Amino acid sequence: MDADGIPEGFPRPPYYETIGIEITTVEPGHATGRLPVGEAVSVGWTGTDHVAHGGAVASLADSVGYWAVSAANDFATTPTIDLRVDYLAPATADLRATATTTRNGASVGTVDVEVVTEDAGDLVATARGVFKTGGGGGGADRSV
Amino acid sequence: MDADGIPEGFPRPPYYETIGIEITTVEPGHATGRLPVGEAVSVGWTGTDHVAHGGAVASLADSVGYWAVSAANDFATTPTIDLRVDYLAPATADLRATATTTRNGASVGTVDVEVVTEDAGDLVATARGVFKTGGGGGGADRSV
Amino acid sequence: MDADGIPEGFPRPPYYETIGIEITTVEPGHATGRLPVGEAVSVGWTGTDHVAHGGAVASLADSVGYWAVSAANDFATTPTIDLRVDYLAPATADLRATATTTRNGASVGTVDVEVVTEDAGDLVATARGVFKTGGGGGGADRSV
Amino acid sequence: MDADGIPEGFPRPPYYETIGIEITTVEPGHATGRLPVGEAVSVGWTGTDHVAHGGAVASLADSVGYWAVSAANDFATTPTIDLRVDYLAPATADLRATATTTRNGASVGTVDVEVVTEDAGDLVATARGVFKTGGGGGGADRSV
Repeated sequence: MDADGIPEGFPRPPYYETIGIEITTVEPGHATGRLPVGEAVSVGWTGTDHVAHGGAVASLADSVGYWAVSAANDFATTPTIDLRVDYLAPATADLRATATTTRNGASVGTVDVEVVTEDAGDLVATARGVFKTGGGGGGADRSV
Repeated sequence: MDADGIPEGFPRPPYYETIGIEITTVEPGHATGRLPVGEAVSVGWTGTDHVAHGGAVASLADSVGYWAVSAANDFATTPTIDLRVDYLAPATADLRATATTTRNGASVGTVDVEVVTEDAGDLVATARGVFKTGGGGGGADRSV
Repeated sequence: MDADGIPEGFPRPPYYETIGIEITTVEPGHATGRLPVGEAVSVGWTGTDHVAHGGAVASLADSVGYWAVSAANDFATTPTIDLRVDYLAPATADLRATATTTRNGASVGTVDVEVVTEDAGDLVATARGVFKTGGGGGGADRSV
Repeated sequence: MDADGIPEGFPRPPYYETIGIEITTVEPGHATGRLPVGEAVSVGWTGTDHVAHGGAVASLADSVGYWAVSAANDFATTPTIDLRVDYLAPATADLRATATTTRNGASVGTVDVEVVTEDAGDLVATARGVFKTGGGGGGADRSV
């Protein structure tokens, strides 16, 4: 295991580095991560602090959701089937996300995600996603 | 107007540059954009072409949805209230997204998004989002 | 086949009769249905015509979605995994719903639904659902 | 106030009686309700107990969500903008639902719903909805 709970040697998505996502803990049915909110993920509204783009928040939510489900399935590839994000407050500070599975079935897993500000713990967004857990061998099957 | 249909001088989100989103056309109730799929947005699965991370696809969908609604409201700031993405096939090629509003109300606008491969036109994902159209002045109100 | 395209002898949900849902056509990947809007499904707001409760609209959407996916899988039992409904206008007249699958995979099927007024064809709601298509034998597996 | 926390004289939707929904408690930002699961809401699968139709579960979720938001806004009419339901287990027993608002904004309110079996407290479904809280006087505005 690496420090974040992902098995040694597992590739991390290059996309994480592009926007700054860090996975912090992973165990079966549970994962956490963080996203620094700076210029790189900003919507660029003038006259305010950096506000994270909704897509960056969605990316963080999808990522922790993925690992919560994957870890509950021996780190199988568990592609996202669908994701819903509710934006509750502007994301003006570094973010922390926590994912918890609500079901881990033979075909799909369902996961709840909370995104809060890292320092104050203020709720910024919630998300819910469904991920494929069932078989399928080849590349084409990877996305459900 | 700039070439993409966004009024001259409007800031584009720095986040677009970070992951590679380009807005291509914007008119009231309608917007299109594209996302090149390469290493920067990749999930990094071995033995396959680059596959775009679900968060990158969500980011593209959110972005074209935003402009479709904003342009239908004189380019007001119209923050995302919620976004739902259905992933239908692996995103292994450059992407094109098209957003169309299905309602533009006094409080909220609703938009449908289709994401296809740019060359073949294969459906990769669909999305639906709700954006705030109603008043609110200050920064805090920006996110609904 | 019965007149609605459902194989002869298949039980129809008693729930259909309770609220008035009628399935009108079913073929692989496609289904239509209707819901009369009267007192039985009304929210009961005073000073208006009957307005259908959001739950009744969701029930209609879920039902046509189900048959579109089930028929694409030899009428297997294909339980709903998730359903998302966008309410675009008050449902003040009898409704017609059309479901079309956007993906029919080995684990899940995804379906798009449009709900319109039967007479004028005005868009009242859209919905999107994911249904289980993959195996599983017993009763417990029925709900994913 | 009536026993369920809804102001005296408020009409209850006739739809509640049609399928059996009872609202049990209502306070600002919080509401609970129940739905007996019998023949009337059944999918009618042979060889099993009654299993509630997904639309009936969605109806219960929408209803408690509505009252949580409405009560947080002086019992204004707060129409559903969108609703997502995740079905986690077959609903084979009487149901209890609890709704809690995660945001009550000037334009919209967002609500989380859990649906469990009344006796065992087993999680059957979760839901998340957005409801209109912002102004608008007439009937046409009622549905967002």
